[in-house]
Amino acid sequence: MKIEITPIGYVKNSRAKIEDDNWSEVLSEIVLNETIIPESLNGIEEFSHLEIIFYMDQVLDEKAIPQYRHPRNNLQLPKLGTFAQRNKNRPNKLGLTTVELIERNGRILRVKNLDAIHGTPVLDIKPVMKEFQPQNEIRQPEWTREIMKNYWKK
Amino acid sequence: MKIEITPIGYVKNSRAKIEDDNWSEVLSEIVLNETIIPESLNGIEEFSHLEIIFYMDQVLDEKAIPQYRHPRNNLQLPKLGTFAQRNKNRPNKLGLTTVELIERNGRILRVKNLDAIHGTPVLDIKPVMKEFQPQNEIRQPEWTREIMKNYWKK
Repeated sequence: MKIEITPIGYVKNSRAKIEDDNWSEVLSEIVLNETIIPESLNGIEEFSHLEIIFYMDQVLDEKAIPQYRHPRNNLQLPKLGTFAQRNKNRPNKLGLTTVELIERNGRILRVKNLDAIHGTPVLDIKPVMKEFQPQNEIRQPEWTREIMKNYWKK
Repeated sequence: MKIEITPIGYVKNSRAKIEDDNWSEVLSEIVLNETIIPESLNGIEEFSHLEIIFYMDQVLDEKAIPQYRHPRNNLQLPKLGTFAQRNKNRPNKLGLTTVELIERNGRILRVKNLDAIHGTPVLDIKPVMKEFQPQNEIRQPEWTREIMKNYWKK
């Protein structure tokens, strides 16, 4: 089974190359395609946060497979499966991040903390509701601290 | 631009038909396809929650467009854009939910609170990390309370 997806827009920001860290430095715009009615964003200003699903088109096809490897190839970290990681080398090349909505202007959303480079196709935008957040405590392994240390750092 | 996506697995549960509410009654399994190495799930047990991206294949093509309408066609609620809602009638038919991981068994994940019906193709699985959660208070409009009232109810 193959599924065909069409981007609804793209990411506009100052980061042209793939980089691992310091994403909070980057302010982004999500620009909807001309084919999308701008009214499809109406009411979005009432939400503080959005979930963005995007397509990491710069990932090489030969790396977009289910794997079992050390996160960031760091041999100090345990060997782990693709679906126990959030890294970009994954089947379907789908990215997903919760961003903070700063402003909506017609077909354009200005957002904070979107970890996608300039030109990345956007596939969907969903408003964050408390009822869809984890309803009990989040548990995660220690190695994630190492990975995330400088991720959002300015 | 068209993007081709291949499901990595599918949802197995007791809910065969599209329904709006009472999703916490449903316990689901995510079954990885035979083409995916089971090691790609290794380490996932150390996370309490996962984000599941799925493809709502039962949504009619003519409804999978950017819209501007009353949530659940309830005229008491304000008219809103597709991207200010989480409903299933949206371009690309992408669903996204944070689930609780109960157990992993080979290629199978048992999860709670997955709001997808039986047979739904799964496109990606990502572990939830605190660092990817909203870092400040979530703000959302009053109408969402009405929509979510019975959503997770047992």
